Amino acid sequence: MSKKNNEKVSIFALGGVGEIGKNMYVVQYANDIVVVDSGLKFPEEDMLGIDVVIPDISYLLEHKDKVRGIILTHGHEDHIGGLPYVLKHLNVPVYGTRLTLGLVEMKLKEANLLGETKRVLIDADSVLNMGTITASFFRTNHSIPDSVGVALDTPEGVVVHTGDFKFDQTPVNDQFADMHRMAEIGSKGVLCLLSDSTNAERPGYTGSEKSVGVEIEDVFRKAKQRVILATFASNIHRIQQVFNAAEATKRKVTVIGRSMVNVVSIASELGYLHIPDGMLIEPEEVNRLAGDRVVILSTGSQGEPMSALTRMARNTHRKIDILPGDTVIISATTIPGNERYVGRTVDELFRIGADVIYGPGSKTGLHVSGHGSQEELKLMLNLIRPKYFIPIHGEYRMLRVHGKLAESVGIPKEDIFIVDNGDTVEIQGGVARKVGKVQAGNILIDGLGVGDVGNIVLRDRKLLSQDGILVVVVTLSKQDGTILSGPDIISRGFVYVRESEGLLDEANRIVTNTLNKLMNDNVNEWASLKTHVKDALGRFLYEQTRRRPMILPIIMEV
Amino acid sequence: MSKKNNEKVSIFALGGVGEIGKNMYVVQYANDIVVVDSGLKFPEEDMLGIDVVIPDISYLLEHKDKVRGIILTHGHEDHIGGLPYVLKHLNVPVYGTRLTLGLVEMKLKEANLLGETKRVLIDADSVLNMGTITASFFRTNHSIPDSVGVALDTPEGVVVHTGDFKFDQTPVNDQFADMHRMAEIGSKGVLCLLSDSTNAERPGYTGSEKSVGVEIEDVFRKAKQRVILATFASNIHRIQQVFNAAEATKRKVTVIGRSMVNVVSIASELGYLHIPDGMLIEPEEVNRLAGDRVVILSTGSQGEPMSALTRMARNTHRKIDILPGDTVIISATTIPGNERYVGRTVDELFRIGADVIYGPGSKTGLHVSGHGSQEELKLMLNLIRPKYFIPIHGEYRMLRVHGKLAESVGIPKEDIFIVDNGDTVEIQGGVARKVGKVQAGNILIDGLGVGDVGNIVLRDRKLLSQDGILVVVVTLSKQDGTILSGPDIISRGFVYVRESEGLLDEANRIVTNTLNKLMNDNVNEWASLKTHVKDALGRFLYEQTRRRPMILPIIMEV
Repeated sequence: MSKKNNEKVSIFALGGVGEIGKNMYVVQYANDIVVVDSGLKFPEEDMLGIDVVIPDISYLLEHKDKVRGIILTHGHEDHIGGLPYVLKHLNVPVYGTRLTLGLVEMKLKEANLLGETKRVLIDADSVLNMGTITASFFRTNHSIPDSVGVALDTPEGVVVHTGDFKFDQTPVNDQFADMHRMAEIGSKGVLCLLSDSTNAERPGYTGSEKSVGVEIEDVFRKAKQRVILATFASNIHRIQQVFNAAEATKRKVTVIGRSMVNVVSIASELGYLHIPDGMLIEPEEVNRLAGDRVVILSTGSQGEPMSALTRMARNTHRKIDILPGDTVIISATTIPGNERYVGRTVDELFRIGADVIYGPGSKTGLHVSGHGSQEELKLMLNLIRPKYFIPIHGEYRMLRVHGKLAESVGIPKEDIFIVDNGDTVEIQGGVARKVGKVQAGNILIDGLGVGDVGNIVLRDRKLLSQDGILVVVVTLSKQDGTILSGPDIISRGFVYVRESEGLLDEANRIVTNTLNKLMNDNVNEWASLKTHVKDALGRFLYEQTRRRPMILPIIMEV
Repeated sequence: MSKKNNEKVSIFALGGVGEIGKNMYVVQYANDIVVVDSGLKFPEEDMLGIDVVIPDISYLLEHKDKVRGIILTHGHEDHIGGLPYVLKHLNVPVYGTRLTLGLVEMKLKEANLLGETKRVLIDADSVLNMGTITASFFRTNHSIPDSVGVALDTPEGVVVHTGDFKFDQTPVNDQFADMHRMAEIGSKGVLCLLSDSTNAERPGYTGSEKSVGVEIEDVFRKAKQRVILATFASNIHRIQQVFNAAEATKRKVTVIGRSMVNVVSIASELGYLHIPDGMLIEPEEVNRLAGDRVVILSTGSQGEPMSALTRMARNTHRKIDILPGDTVIISATTIPGNERYVGRTVDELFRIGADVIYGPGSKTGLHVSGHGSQEELKLMLNLIRPKYFIPIHGEYRMLRVHGKLAESVGIPKEDIFIVDNGDTVEIQGGVARKVGKVQAGNILIDGLGVGDVGNIVLRDRKLLSQDGILVVVVTLSKQDGTILSGPDIISRGFVYVRESEGLLDEANRIVTNTLNKLMNDNVNEWASLKTHVKDALGRFLYEQTRRRPMILPIIMEV
């Protein structure tokens, strides 16, 4: 395409740089904006009561008319999970491969957005004209099938976005990462590469998914009773290997856990999962079969309290209990922050008397990562041979390490951009520089509320969670400001009231005295009444308990 | 000692079995109770607002007169941290080695218990007569000096408690684990062994502390600017090696972080830490020296938000900032649950431009564990050669794995007891069996409150932390029950009030209508008024927001 004067390509992330999750990248040339992925991330421990976190899309809303569409690299939550929220405000076409769209459609149906959303099916050979930008694709390996990288051809040059990837030389579905196309793209010249940094800290190569299949079959063969295997619902390669191993060892498979059931049905409908006839059984049928004929494929690899595995471990699952002698395989890495949950679930499984195959502490059990390690990241850099490099998908430290890897394969330090969400890299006339920052950040979603929970609310929740709350109510007379009723003190989450009557009576006295004193001094603006009550009560409670509950004085007037 | 008729030895844990932390073991024969260790553990994520957790010592309080004393195996928090709380209610002698007592005395001073507590200094050669029980000791290696194991000779036989241990064949302080004495104890015959299970999941041997010293010196030598090293304050071997490496590389050392400062001063006073003259400098002096002449020894290896390292990383530390080009060494394992904290601190250090040496994800940087791995646990089992075995110090899964290790060295399955806190193993006439359960469990400490925060309070804190609270206040007339004032609705941690006026006004209308309707129906008991308001408001808010804040209706009457 012909190069317009003083136009430029701008590249920035609304999410996914300097963090894991809520991936959303933007490439803009002139009046054409292409968005890559629309993910969500799960709240951090200080985001109390928050359900999920999505990127701030203000920039896209301000430039609605320029947004040509959202290209999805694969079907993981951190790449498609944000769509239901984003599409509500930004109705643009969504481009994805078959499995990816299949999973997206499941989401959009739940959100009643399926009808009004234009979905465009692509494959690795598709070419999309998105205004001045042309998008083409290359197949990658990842822990979900049908994942692709994107090459965005702009008048300024080609920008490549890898999506999540590894190089699996023996992929389960025989879909090899398309190194030939990557090489072809690289040899034509690439202006800028955006590449997955998730495993930038890991030396060497990530193992092949097939190596896990061998181990799984081995466990299935040796297990004397039932085998329960927990993994991520989206890891269809893993799930395929579970079915393969079950077939090889003459076991039937039942599937439990909502997301696992959904994904298995979609993936097999779309032909990404091949289940031998008669292999799949209902949970109810499990007890009719001998233990060594059964595999239970389950969610809960992160020890999530409400997941199927955890409920089975606690014997609170409606349909299936885990029995002594059963073998439980946790076939996943533990996501940082979930260690204690997983540990507890494993403890409970041991108490039942199950044999548990898991990752002691932090090592991983039967699992390989879906993300390439250092040697694979270098391989990608050497295939694509970009002029400029922006490491993406990773915590800040991972981006830095990935940057060092790029230097080690010969990319000059000054051509590597470590950016935060919103930081814009602009390339014009072949020269890249970091320019301003577009609005970006976390939008917190709590129930139906999108972004209505901010720092104030979170700070209050934090306070409340630490020492609880005391509400002090008093009714004053309009005429003379005397106390007509109360003060009453009600507390929650502060002390066990039954055993603290003395303390609360004393607190009551202190409030009364404070108020009376103020009235005698003719202090009667509510503001200062409240402040004085707060201070006096707060001081007293801290002396007595070394706790600082939130104190909420309420004055009624009649 | 002569064996009394139908007397028996009872062994149980009040804490430390099936969990990490708050270690407290009890061995009783007839009227003699010996307690081993008195630790605390830090709250789990669902124990909102809790400071620390100690064992339930009801059993000891019921048998005060029989408790002969508390023997401390070493000076770590999870073995001595509970003392200030326990001694307040149970004034018994405390036995410990010099460093252990030194650290204990620091605690007791803070708790104003130093005067009234009898402290008895022991060493590896001490022999204590505690009624019918005789205690002797053997030196062990651990991540703190002066750690010992205990042999309790009862008329029924010898019970051995290892404390925390590893076998370090090249210990930093040349204090070898006393294998000869262990062998001697073993050859005389041991009735029961209680052994540390912390690393039961780790194959092989734990590395020698000295190997870390070599790496530290290497980093000190290569670093062009200042080196900041963060580790556990109690890891005096590590700290000694930091001083050694500093001396070898002509760097001065400054110490920051309250606990680090305390431990360094106590340990050097007592001669456990050897600091060359003129090596120690004040934080203020740091900036006067060239970067490559400085080491900053700091707390914060767990990324604790308020720790010295984290504050330095955020440039909020009073005295020291970390500069680009500084080298930061995190010389510790990340305790499960702290991964995100550590990750964030490392990210912040990278942003500053520091070189960070840390454990990617969960792998560990410059560090070796203080606990023996599987081969060392087998070695202990083979040296002590007990009839019965009780794995201690570890989560349930670790106890199970340790039990399997014991089987592998020839201890019959039926002679291995995997117990929970409170489960009592009784041995009489050489025959052991699991009998009842004594009261045991978690006592939660919040500020000055010991055990006054129970499930109700925690459940409220959890509720409050998720969706906040709405307080609904209304003043009714004593005469006719009509509304004189209000209803007023005040919320905290629910929604951002400024942007939710519409919602709250509507909520107000709903409360008013509910009350008026009830009055027309002559419903006026407060209980049912409150319930109806709660239900109506709760339903409305859930429909509108999909949140379930705590609703606190308060009725005043004048």
